[in-house]
Amino acid sequence: MYDAIKHLVESRKFQNFIIGIIILNGITMGLETSKSFSANYYTFFEIFNIAVVAIFTIEIILRIYVYKMSFFKDAWSLFDFTIVAISLVPTTGGFEIFRILRVLRLFRLITVVPQMRKIISALLGVIPGIASIAGLLTLFFYIFAIMSTQLFGEKFPEWFGTLGESFYTLFQIMTLESWSMGIVRPVMEVYPLSWMFFIPFIFLATFIIVNLIIAIVVDAMNEMNDTEEEHIIEEFHASEETAKQEIRKLRNEIKELKELMLSRK
Amino acid sequence: MYDAIKHLVESRKFQNFIIGIIILNGITMGLETSKSFSANYYTFFEIFNIAVVAIFTIEIILRIYVYKMSFFKDAWSLFDFTIVAISLVPTTGGFEIFRILRVLRLFRLITVVPQMRKIISALLGVIPGIASIAGLLTLFFYIFAIMSTQLFGEKFPEWFGTLGESFYTLFQIMTLESWSMGIVRPVMEVYPLSWMFFIPFIFLATFIIVNLIIAIVVDAMNEMNDTEEEHIIEEFHASEETAKQEIRKLRNEIKELKELMLSRK
Amino acid sequence: MYDAIKHLVESRKFQNFIIGIIILNGITMGLETSKSFSANYYTFFEIFNIAVVAIFTIEIILRIYVYKMSFFKDAWSLFDFTIVAISLVPTTGGFEIFRILRVLRLFRLITVVPQMRKIISALLGVIPGIASIAGLLTLFFYIFAIMSTQLFGEKFPEWFGTLGESFYTLFQIMTLESWSMGIVRPVMEVYPLSWMFFIPFIFLATFIIVNLIIAIVVDAMNEMNDTEEEHIIEEFHASEETAKQEIRKLRNEIKELKELMLSRK
Amino acid sequence: MYDAIKHLVESRKFQNFIIGIIILNGITMGLETSKSFSANYYTFFEIFNIAVVAIFTIEIILRIYVYKMSFFKDAWSLFDFTIVAISLVPTTGGFEIFRILRVLRLFRLITVVPQMRKIISALLGVIPGIASIAGLLTLFFYIFAIMSTQLFGEKFPEWFGTLGESFYTLFQIMTLESWSMGIVRPVMEVYPLSWMFFIPFIFLATFIIVNLIIAIVVDAMNEMNDTEEEHIIEEFHASEETAKQEIRKLRNEIKELKELMLSRK
Repeated sequence: MYDAIKHLVESRKFQNFIIGIIILNGITMGLETSKSFSANYYTFFEIFNIAVVAIFTIEIILRIYVYKMSFFKDAWSLFDFTIVAISLVPTTGGFEIFRILRVLRLFRLITVVPQMRKIISALLGVIPGIASIAGLLTLFFYIFAIMSTQLFGEKFPEWFGTLGESFYTLFQIMTLESWSMGIVRPVMEVYPLSWMFFIPFIFLATFIIVNLIIAIVVDAMNEMNDTEEEHIIEEFHASEETAKQEIRKLRNEIKELKELMLSRK
Repeated sequence: MYDAIKHLVESRKFQNFIIGIIILNGITMGLETSKSFSANYYTFFEIFNIAVVAIFTIEIILRIYVYKMSFFKDAWSLFDFTIVAISLVPTTGGFEIFRILRVLRLFRLITVVPQMRKIISALLGVIPGIASIAGLLTLFFYIFAIMSTQLFGEKFPEWFGTLGESFYTLFQIMTLESWSMGIVRPVMEVYPLSWMFFIPFIFLATFIIVNLIIAIVVDAMNEMNDTEEEHIIEEFHASEETAKQEIRKLRNEIKELKELMLSRK
Repeated sequence: MYDAIKHLVESRKFQNFIIGIIILNGITMGLETSKSFSANYYTFFEIFNIAVVAIFTIEIILRIYVYKMSFFKDAWSLFDFTIVAISLVPTTGGFEIFRILRVLRLFRLITVVPQMRKIISALLGVIPGIASIAGLLTLFFYIFAIMSTQLFGEKFPEWFGTLGESFYTLFQIMTLESWSMGIVRPVMEVYPLSWMFFIPFIFLATFIIVNLIIAIVVDAMNEMNDTEEEHIIEEFHASEETAKQEIRKLRNEIKELKELMLSRK
Repeated sequence: MYDAIKHLVESRKFQNFIIGIIILNGITMGLETSKSFSANYYTFFEIFNIAVVAIFTIEIILRIYVYKMSFFKDAWSLFDFTIVAISLVPTTGGFEIFRILRVLRLFRLITVVPQMRKIISALLGVIPGIASIAGLLTLFFYIFAIMSTQLFGEKFPEWFGTLGESFYTLFQIMTLESWSMGIVRPVMEVYPLSWMFFIPFIFLATFIIVNLIIAIVVDAMNEMNDTEEEHIIEEFHASEETAKQEIRKLRNEIKELKELMLSRK
């Protein structure tokens, strides 16, 4: 019984079936956004939705039955579990946001398709290399957000009224979206010297972001170069070994020669 | 007869003639956009146009005659064929769009000039390396488009009314164009927490795009590094070979010495 | 006494205590931006602030006592000293800007946490490699600022009225923020040929910026490649040494053989 | 006489003097943009200006006298010559634009300072590697400009009325400035399917630009890698030479041994 289920869960067909369900669900969710579709086929969509949740729930239960506790140690499995759990929360009475979070279910395509998993792993692998620069950027943002709230909060409450609003506005400025015409020029009409705050902010933010991106590039290159170095050195050691053997043979021949001579003495 | 035509089609002069026609056609098409030119020289432009289409059609027929079925197996030839076929579609009665597609004819400059072909090949060669990240980006866009339609579609039908509109608006936000002043600030006035949707979207979209670009860079570097590695290792093996020959000579001399000794015994 | 203080100042506990104070101060400064918090806990914030300044002042005095003149030779120490000195300036009577500069105190987190120092050093290390391109960019900006003031200053005093305003507007154009809809299109309505000034400016500015970023990347790669090269060559010399020893042994054996022969003579 | 002038022209002091004049002229040109300065010191600025032009003219004459025809073969010298020639054109009667072009004189700082020359050479060195991609981009722009004039020229004459206006607007869209809120959304209100023209345009333009930048990076890296490869292979050949000599010595010893043996025969 256990073996049969394990065999089923790990079979290619089963995985393809799940992938198919996810893709079908993706299509119905897309169609549901159309008002006319949604109105005409409401019952169908609801039933299909319940069926999908049922299938996913059974799949998760089977996988927990097969892998036991090790299911909860695997990040991908936990992700699947959370996504399915969200689908099971009733969506009435204050929990309507869960209705929208159901769409996240389509992200299961990532956990089911191995190539997608690999990319996500690669993307996540980038993070440690940039964590410290990101930390610096956060500190830098926090300090500038406090300063901008103190400096411009009173006259421009919409943009710099609270710490949160300042954070948002500074983020907007960092993305360079309407930073001048939309924000800094109006502020400069009240505080003519405010460019002394914003221009350095833009310079520093851009500089840190550029270095953050370069850190990712350098990290990726480093790994590549290490592989190259290793290959060359390996090739090198192999050839060194051959050379040593050649020389050893030479020594043996000389040794023989010597013995020959000594024997003739 | 066949050989003469093959010789003609493959001759440099013929190719230069076609290049000349394309460039001339490019100039006339540019002039045609000017209303005064277009009005005064209408007949001339029409006749020239017909002549160009005739020349291109004859060229394609000759090439099909020469290369037979293998013509249709070459992507560049198929491209030429499609472009010329578009020019032959009558442009009256609902097919007026084909009149505009005629301009695509100038893209034949790419298929005729070998250097241009090389660049296009290089540009296309980049795609497999980024296909999987692009796939992930598409999935990510699809899920966020569904969510934004559900969340903001009712209050902002112009931006998020349908799935297509959401796709367009999210694409605009990804390019950072007016994302805050134009879209997110107005949305936040109705849904104050909507930044919790848009800021992560911008972070993730930017992060994926950056990694997509880095993937192209790393791919290009990888090829370069492989060449370097190969060169070093080749050089290395050549020198190893020399060393082995030197040692072989040594061994021969020692062998002679041994034989000398044995002969003297 | 001196040793006890030195021991204290260099102890991990003391450093963690200072880090804790900075973080706490960061939180209180964040809370202070909220009007309701600021009003209700004004006295508390003021007292805590005085306490923090007192602790920092004592810390700096202790460090000066311990390290004497070498304290002032260390850039990080000087940074700490300046930050604390700013906190000690009275904030009444024209010096209110110093109240805001107090937030810079949080940047001490960088000088206290070693990992942060490393990143800052790395970021600053990038500068020499780009100094000359930055110099060129400045010259280029200066010349274009003079020209735009002369050309458009009269009709568009808000954007190009003075050299400073031109600098600011050109910087905005360089960041591509509203360059066309906001600035160049209105200017072109008065001076239809002004695109001949702005388009080349955008091309050149973007080209220089791209090269500036590439200079950072190439610098980082260069260092990496040098390390790789060194590793390979080191490995190489090590193996060369081994080969030489092997050959030396061979020669010794041959020498012995020769001596043996001569002795037998 | 000739030698004395040659010595003068090539002396460090003379060059520093010219650099000083350029910097001073830069400062006065900056000051001249200020209306109050310009009004009060008009005569001074005029006299200084004439003096600078006189000095530069004499300098160029001396250099032509010294280097003869080879002066005109050096790109930097020709640049200096052109810049000074522009300053000599009278600025009245339709030639007022030359007054503004005088500012270009400050670019002489580049030709006089050797480090600046080097950077410019490096920047220009980047161009051949991207020429073909830039050519492709031009063709691509030309075709899309013709199409957009045909498609949208009638209804949006301000943006797509002529080929030139289409070029400008497409350039603006390529820089992503207000592409959606400013251009494409209004166009879509008239032609709902126009996104099928603009979205591919943005995709393709961005893709080509990204590849253009990557081509610069790869070119820079390639040069670096070549140097590394060369260093390793050089080191490698040096060591090969040493090994050969060692082996040659061995052979000599064996030869001696053989001769010794033969002599004993």
